[in-house]
Amino acid sequence: MPKDAQAPPRIQIGDPTPMVDCGRFAAKRTVGERVGVSAEIFTDGHDVVRAVVRVLEPGSSRWTESPMQRIDADAGGDRWAGEFEVTQLGRYTWTVEAWIEPFAGWRGELSRKIDAGQSDLSGELSEGEVLLERAAGRARGDDRKRIAAAVDVLRATGATAKLRHAAVLDPDLLEAVERHPDRSASTTIAQGLHVDADPVRARFGAWYELFPRSWGGLQGVRERVPELAELGFDVLYLPPVHPIGLTNRKGPNNALTAGPGDPGSPWAIGDATGGHTALHPDLGTMEDFDALVATAREHGIDIALDFAIQASADHPWLTEHPEWFNRRPDGTLKYAENPPKKYQDIYNFNWDCEDWKGLWEAMRDIVRHWASHGVTTFRVDNPHTKPVAFWEWLIGELRAEYPQVIFLAEAFTRAAMMRMLAKIGFNQSYTYFTWKSSKWELSDYLTELASSGMQEYYRPNFFVNTPDILTEELQVGGPPKFASRLVLAATLSPTYGVYSGFENFERLAVRQGSEEYDHSEKYEVKSRTLDGPLLTLISRLNTIRRDNAALQHLDNVRFLTTENDALIAYAKRTGDNTVICVVTLDPLTPQEGIVVVPHVLGLPPVFTVTDLLSGESFDDWRMGRNFVRLDPYRVAHLLRVS
Amino acid sequence: MPKDAQAPPRIQIGDPTPMVDCGRFAAKRTVGERVGVSAEIFTDGHDVVRAVVRVLEPGSSRWTESPMQRIDADAGGDRWAGEFEVTQLGRYTWTVEAWIEPFAGWRGELSRKIDAGQSDLSGELSEGEVLLERAAGRARGDDRKRIAAAVDVLRATGATAKLRHAAVLDPDLLEAVERHPDRSASTTIAQGLHVDADPVRARFGAWYELFPRSWGGLQGVRERVPELAELGFDVLYLPPVHPIGLTNRKGPNNALTAGPGDPGSPWAIGDATGGHTALHPDLGTMEDFDALVATAREHGIDIALDFAIQASADHPWLTEHPEWFNRRPDGTLKYAENPPKKYQDIYNFNWDCEDWKGLWEAMRDIVRHWASHGVTTFRVDNPHTKPVAFWEWLIGELRAEYPQVIFLAEAFTRAAMMRMLAKIGFNQSYTYFTWKSSKWELSDYLTELASSGMQEYYRPNFFVNTPDILTEELQVGGPPKFASRLVLAATLSPTYGVYSGFENFERLAVRQGSEEYDHSEKYEVKSRTLDGPLLTLISRLNTIRRDNAALQHLDNVRFLTTENDALIAYAKRTGDNTVICVVTLDPLTPQEGIVVVPHVLGLPPVFTVTDLLSGESFDDWRMGRNFVRLDPYRVAHLLRVS
Repeated sequence: MPKDAQAPPRIQIGDPTPMVDCGRFAAKRTVGERVGVSAEIFTDGHDVVRAVVRVLEPGSSRWTESPMQRIDADAGGDRWAGEFEVTQLGRYTWTVEAWIEPFAGWRGELSRKIDAGQSDLSGELSEGEVLLERAAGRARGDDRKRIAAAVDVLRATGATAKLRHAAVLDPDLLEAVERHPDRSASTTIAQGLHVDADPVRARFGAWYELFPRSWGGLQGVRERVPELAELGFDVLYLPPVHPIGLTNRKGPNNALTAGPGDPGSPWAIGDATGGHTALHPDLGTMEDFDALVATAREHGIDIALDFAIQASADHPWLTEHPEWFNRRPDGTLKYAENPPKKYQDIYNFNWDCEDWKGLWEAMRDIVRHWASHGVTTFRVDNPHTKPVAFWEWLIGELRAEYPQVIFLAEAFTRAAMMRMLAKIGFNQSYTYFTWKSSKWELSDYLTELASSGMQEYYRPNFFVNTPDILTEELQVGGPPKFASRLVLAATLSPTYGVYSGFENFERLAVRQGSEEYDHSEKYEVKSRTLDGPLLTLISRLNTIRRDNAALQHLDNVRFLTTENDALIAYAKRTGDNTVICVVTLDPLTPQEGIVVVPHVLGLPPVFTVTDLLSGESFDDWRMGRNFVRLDPYRVAHLLRVS
Repeated sequence: MPKDAQAPPRIQIGDPTPMVDCGRFAAKRTVGERVGVSAEIFTDGHDVVRAVVRVLEPGSSRWTESPMQRIDADAGGDRWAGEFEVTQLGRYTWTVEAWIEPFAGWRGELSRKIDAGQSDLSGELSEGEVLLERAAGRARGDDRKRIAAAVDVLRATGATAKLRHAAVLDPDLLEAVERHPDRSASTTIAQGLHVDADPVRARFGAWYELFPRSWGGLQGVRERVPELAELGFDVLYLPPVHPIGLTNRKGPNNALTAGPGDPGSPWAIGDATGGHTALHPDLGTMEDFDALVATAREHGIDIALDFAIQASADHPWLTEHPEWFNRRPDGTLKYAENPPKKYQDIYNFNWDCEDWKGLWEAMRDIVRHWASHGVTTFRVDNPHTKPVAFWEWLIGELRAEYPQVIFLAEAFTRAAMMRMLAKIGFNQSYTYFTWKSSKWELSDYLTELASSGMQEYYRPNFFVNTPDILTEELQVGGPPKFASRLVLAATLSPTYGVYSGFENFERLAVRQGSEEYDHSEKYEVKSRTLDGPLLTLISRLNTIRRDNAALQHLDNVRFLTTENDALIAYAKRTGDNTVICVVTLDPLTPQEGIVVVPHVLGLPPVFTVTDLLSGESFDDWRMGRNFVRLDPYRVAHLLRVS
């Protein structure tokens, strides 16, 4: 038996959305978005329910609220929806409150009785009088006067039944009463639910990855910034820029021994001159770094740094903090391995060591250091091999100080861990996109990302290639395949990325069956220039993405029937902007098919589309079947509906 | 930063099943069932994980546990499964605990290194020695000796590498070590999850509903008990057996005025002689009631009583507890209504009254009264018009004292409330089955009940008719339709019910468009006998249901293609028992079709089936397409696979 003097609330509120893992984690949105929320709300009996969504802004202690509406009454449902806008960075808290509005219920019943011809309603009117008196007691100003006037009509001895009925059924009176509800017996979701408002860039952006040492160091990279901006890139991602260990340095093609001139892998971090907060002397000075960040910012580009938690044998921490590393019982250090694979040039940290707090703080200070130099984006190397609790803590610490910072999880592992990293705070995540090539693989995977619940917290970053991933598809598919994959990445995912060399169709693998580049830039210095033949298409796609809001979202994708498994088609719609994308998955062969436009897209029976790639217009597209043809010289249609 | 000296647990446990509303409510099972549980369990890095399901029996404070296994490793998943048996009535609590087993991980890596031909593994063996020493410290008895012996081999100066490897890779050693894990840094689901173990009857049973006044009162009913048991019924459900009010008593066909001999509706409860704990004098005495319960029990039949929370104008409580009822401002009582409908013969309680606690307790005491007279089942009338919190409390109170008691919710309202009543404790629920007639309606609805998550807490009771529901389908379909609906109810749902008269094909409605029976038994006394022509089929079905475990479950249903919308087919499988049901939905016309047996049923390419209704065998059924024909004289095949 409940202890309170008052009976427990009569309203039930259940199944709120968005909710991630029963509210343990926050849903993600970006600043400026409206957050649609919903819940199942109902009560016993026939009472009339009212509900609001209540919101607490980041750092605020004042709740604001806005009304919710029942949205599926026609289908016999009890789902109510509302919304709020996230206008600033940080964590929002929301909840739902619902109460019974007795006057509205009474008024509805009276109205049904009058409609049914019932005549003696004096008992009912006496109930209404009581409800109105109470409402007048709660109301203020004009509303109070309005309600009191209705009570006066009910009390007037000479008033006819018709006059009284008209007085209490006046819609203005209902509104006046409802502005001053009695919420003393309301129901609220016990638990506050959370929404993290991130920068727009966390959702939408085009990434370019390059090794600064192949571009003339930080100064050379800085000189390329205006061109990268012109090409439409939003984020410039640099693999580790720190000193590289000499002990067990890897040679070309991951050779166990390096020659005297070999530069080593940038992921073998640290030498006598410094570790994770130092710059490799060949790349430039801290001033050069700051200048690069400043120039990038002027051109609207964010610098993304690699955050790789591992140390070369020469990292200062091996002597300063030997207690942080894995050791054998005989005291010798253990290099990284995943048996039988060995990574002789790097050492992993021991997350179970006694000074784990010191280790955590040292890691936090690395990220803080770079954030203080204007870095807003961190691409985290292999986060899945470090404790989840550590990341949740580190990201929370950074976000408290730098709420604009974005973390991208480079985890290629099993799905449960990849999802968990996104839940605990990573703003973006690498994906399995590179290995999804057939139509059903792509549509299944995108449907999972866009509508399985993952869309609330998992933001994919579709890289077409990486220094570790040259897919077989690209190795054998030739330039048309590069173009096809590029269009897929740039239109399926709001965030996508290209690793330098892709635009030159680089596709020679170190050996058959490997996804490693031959003479990978990971172990060698190249001489790179920004002039690959695919840059024209990249630039065009980036412009199209900026001009079409539909391509800046993920959860709006809908796959369309094509009657040809070599052709994939999907529509995206945001507000008035609808883009129908048709891409060939077999660009070496001309492919013909049918794109079926379903009525749920809400388009007119016949409409005009403009191909954003070619500029051509077609005025005979229609609901239903539309002929399409693609070939090696035209791998995609991106059709904006006029 | 976590405050503890030890780093936070490295293992993540998520998405446990079964879980109802984030663990707010219990899943339901019946005594003797094994409860399959699962969760996503994983850790960072490459460590080897072990997990157990831990269980607390009702009333116990000692946790027991059993191992879980990773079940989707082939698909790259991290789902682990385990199970436990519920052997007694009441609420079980379970959770999952997982830890890292460093020796198993070390052993796996060593093994991979040996397989890869790595030779100098002395550093590795020194690590293994430390792990084994720690394990020996935790172990006892033979296991301790076994582990210590392995340590001795590692330490023996003369031992060859081969000998040492063999010693540490011995599977017996691994088992000995794993029997004594170090769980000091384990992860446990913070929240205990619940499973309510109910009597088997809560899941599986055949109900018969009758008005005792039409059968010679309680004594007359008692004389019918042996026949009802012979027919295979498990539950005998009686509408209210209490005194009936005289004021505003309803006449035949719900007439506003009753004649002098009219008995009134049993749901207008209470007169000067008593209320909800009294018996209608025409039905018999409390001794008669107890005798009926005793005879029923001897024959394996449960008596189900109606619990209808409403009062006639003559109910003693109207004078004893006027404060519990709804009143107008002028002090007059308000009869029940749902405008413009009026229920002039009954009064509802005011759940918001000041003495709501007294009201709750009085209601609890009614149910307790009948439970003390051996009633184990309560069919609750219109629970959705009373507060949800009240039901949760009342059912909890009763279950603490009488854990075998079953509550059936007679709520015909919107889905959210119906689901909520099941979640908060109703063991069974009425459904929309009576109004699902087409093939897609039936398969959609059953799929929702059986596999949307509802199967964890919502147990349907498929009544083919009720005193309030004579569907149009039955009114126009004639005897073959009665047979078809009966087979559907008895084979789709483990619990189903028949209201007396169905077996006589009673199908005259009070008027066109109404589902009310003409001269409904609700307002008149009939003279009933147990000799309807449909009893043969009912009896046969009840025998088949008892003989075939597959028909005693809901979540095992799978619908099969028939290539004819007038034929519905579904398979149910439990253990070795597979039954394929084919039922015609248009029994007035002969219908032919194809039943497609999919490979997922796990049947051989060709197999023999026996029709449990006709006794015929067919030895040429096969995976794939099978011809079927049904007509008015044979409305269903119930094919048991041999």
